Amino acid sequence: MSRLSPALFRKLERLLKPGELRLDDVTRQAHAGDRWFASHLPDAVVLARSTAAVSAVLRFANQHRIPVTPRGAGHGYVGGCVPLQGGIALSLDRMNRIKQIHAGDFVAVVQPGVRTQQLQDKVEAKGLFYPPDPASRSDCSLGGNIVTNAGGPRCLKYGVTRDYVLGLEVVLADGTICRLGSRTHKNKTGFELARMFVGSEGLLGVITEATLKLLPLPPYRGCVAVGYDTAPAAAKAIQDIFAAGILPCALEVADGFTLAAARKRTGSRQLEGCNAMIIVEVDGQERSVRAELREVEKAARQPGTRFVQRALGAAACEKVWQVRREFSYSLRDTGLTKLNEDVAVPRSRLVGLFNFAARLQKKHGFPVACFGHAGDGNIHVNIMVDETSPGWKERSERALDDLFTRVIDWGGVITGEHGVGLAKKRWFPQAISPEVQALHRTVKQALDPNGILNPGKFL
Amino acid sequence: MSRLSPALFRKLERLLKPGELRLDDVTRQAHAGDRWFASHLPDAVVLARSTAAVSAVLRFANQHRIPVTPRGAGHGYVGGCVPLQGGIALSLDRMNRIKQIHAGDFVAVVQPGVRTQQLQDKVEAKGLFYPPDPASRSDCSLGGNIVTNAGGPRCLKYGVTRDYVLGLEVVLADGTICRLGSRTHKNKTGFELARMFVGSEGLLGVITEATLKLLPLPPYRGCVAVGYDTAPAAAKAIQDIFAAGILPCALEVADGFTLAAARKRTGSRQLEGCNAMIIVEVDGQERSVRAELREVEKAARQPGTRFVQRALGAAACEKVWQVRREFSYSLRDTGLTKLNEDVAVPRSRLVGLFNFAARLQKKHGFPVACFGHAGDGNIHVNIMVDETSPGWKERSERALDDLFTRVIDWGGVITGEHGVGLAKKRWFPQAISPEVQALHRTVKQALDPNGILNPGKFL
Repeated sequence: MSRLSPALFRKLERLLKPGELRLDDVTRQAHAGDRWFASHLPDAVVLARSTAAVSAVLRFANQHRIPVTPRGAGHGYVGGCVPLQGGIALSLDRMNRIKQIHAGDFVAVVQPGVRTQQLQDKVEAKGLFYPPDPASRSDCSLGGNIVTNAGGPRCLKYGVTRDYVLGLEVVLADGTICRLGSRTHKNKTGFELARMFVGSEGLLGVITEATLKLLPLPPYRGCVAVGYDTAPAAAKAIQDIFAAGILPCALEVADGFTLAAARKRTGSRQLEGCNAMIIVEVDGQERSVRAELREVEKAARQPGTRFVQRALGAAACEKVWQVRREFSYSLRDTGLTKLNEDVAVPRSRLVGLFNFAARLQKKHGFPVACFGHAGDGNIHVNIMVDETSPGWKERSERALDDLFTRVIDWGGVITGEHGVGLAKKRWFPQAISPEVQALHRTVKQALDPNGILNPGKFL
Repeated sequence: MSRLSPALFRKLERLLKPGELRLDDVTRQAHAGDRWFASHLPDAVVLARSTAAVSAVLRFANQHRIPVTPRGAGHGYVGGCVPLQGGIALSLDRMNRIKQIHAGDFVAVVQPGVRTQQLQDKVEAKGLFYPPDPASRSDCSLGGNIVTNAGGPRCLKYGVTRDYVLGLEVVLADGTICRLGSRTHKNKTGFELARMFVGSEGLLGVITEATLKLLPLPPYRGCVAVGYDTAPAAAKAIQDIFAAGILPCALEVADGFTLAAARKRTGSRQLEGCNAMIIVEVDGQERSVRAELREVEKAARQPGTRFVQRALGAAACEKVWQVRREFSYSLRDTGLTKLNEDVAVPRSRLVGLFNFAARLQKKHGFPVACFGHAGDGNIHVNIMVDETSPGWKERSERALDDLFTRVIDWGGVITGEHGVGLAKKRWFPQAISPEVQALHRTVKQALDPNGILNPGKFL
């Protein structure tokens, strides 16, 4: 890979509009990483304002073999947009227009820099619904959601970001602009190329526009939060809800450590003595929601139930979810640093995972807090480390080795929704067979033969 | 491409188990095509009984540059498995075991030859649900469903086959066996490679096992059929159902020509004088279904409503659907041949498509019957041709040219669920931009550099 010489800088600048190329330290530092701890300075930052600019940058970079690391809002959790080999940090943040919301076609056409919640608010005002709801939805961008295939609590019923991507405009490594997919809700014309870029973590192309599927907005919501003495009681409740033929909108779980921290932060009395809690939400017509919620409660009441809190309507539901949203902050209040691992296990391994987390805690001497999307088997296992304690880094790596080995052994995966990035890079070869690694390289080589796109990541 | 010489036959035979290689005329003829009219004899048929056999065949064929055309149950509608350049027809029909149905993990592990309905019956007996429901589900195979990304009426609420593919075992063109994806409901480890093979029509690899996602079985169903004076009245009803915030399980529509044929076949009195009909199904808890169905009826009652037929419970629903399932046979009763084009249009173009079909009929002198998945904008436009009429072939091609040009112009697609195969090959270059065609070729070249997999199709 070559670096950007002053002559190349000048050449690149001529391809762009004034203000699109930035070389100052402040801008470079602001584009050196994401929410994970790793960072590396890019040589230059391009704040692209058009597909044409993205295309020009990639054509230029491909010709001169300059690394390009695309980035959205920079709210990823795995260091996916760290420009590890310098070169150009290509920000899509300025391409932030909602181009169209079409109520008749049930589609939205957006640029990648649009914030997820911004789109959700706009479509809901028109009686439409964009379900994917990553926790950071007010800060993260749709482009970032697409390249990480972001999930969230509602994905249990409604699926992940992939399921809402009907069409994409993608700029390939050589600058070619491709419009893939369509605005129809079904399409079988050729290969599923649009969705090949979903979850590709910036390694295969740069997304400059997306046509997203919308649904009719369910007019009503209801939820129940149920606290339990023990984790197995919560696991049994989850099984019984599914066995009743109910597919809730969301089904979240939290363990004792998380709940203790949340109780401390929020002062919530009902969490006292709870070693597990579930939150179950259903949505639809008001009468359906009321009827279904009764069924959910029936299934959720197990021996060892400590409280049942029911909420009807959006405002009441938001109050219940408020506690859930405090989990991350509550854990931070402990003064420890949380290493958030979003493993996913086959659904029947849920209790096994909670028990294993308890053993991990004993063996390695770190508190471990588990919470997350129980319905998907996608649990955030947070290893809580004290960064002032000597040798914490090595010890935490060994704890993660144990965790991922166990999860892979169960047929689980090392990341359910955050991606591999840099954070999981070390375990990628263990998670994926040599044949599948080779297939990754084949696809990467075909689409980015000079390897300019986001180099130094998991391939 | 080389052909199979006697020496090569003997070499291939030694790689397989007795009975797996067939050279007789009857077997070759039985593997020359699908439900579309084109056919071509393969030189040999392999009735594979294991992944090892599939791998051996592909390694051998790749080495000797022999065309291999994989096939499932042979129930495709577009000639996708016609071995156009001879060589080997590779049947997955004998690999028809359901290997596992796991109620705790909500997954099924199947071989590609399993019939779709067979899996559905087995999982429903355990309180589980596999939603994709192509009309031919009793005859078609899951492997075929996967490589065509098959849909069906229920896909409106539940999504298409792609959305249920968690993991795949795929044999690549050179014989390499890859296990892609996982049995977890969420997975973000690397690229979405499993789903790259979904809808690939046998051009990228051969699927030898699939891990499919299951849902809890909704315990109750209900549906309404509503007949109208005019197509716009039906279209307005559809809009109003969505506007009420309802996402039905299925929302089907049929036009006057189809209904007249169905009335003739079934003797149904209520269809008399109807120029459009919709069928709307909802599923879930019994009380929810009853409540929602009332909302659906309210939205569906429009000026020009001729009848409303309500059905509660599975048995009553099946009676309503029986009429829908008779549509194809009813059209065949006319003595004409139906050219079934499964175009999809943006949802707001539904009335436009019905009107255009009427104009097409006048201009080209063929009756045109439209019915299908209104909720998805995926309408089967059946051009009814009289094969005894001189010049019908050329005239029908011109009518199809008009249809596809119109649909593409609206931002629609030439195939919503059947695939391109041979039937739509002529229009593929019109439907897809040169850049996207090139990207198709890049992916094909990377995965099948010798072009042995299903040659002569749309690439």
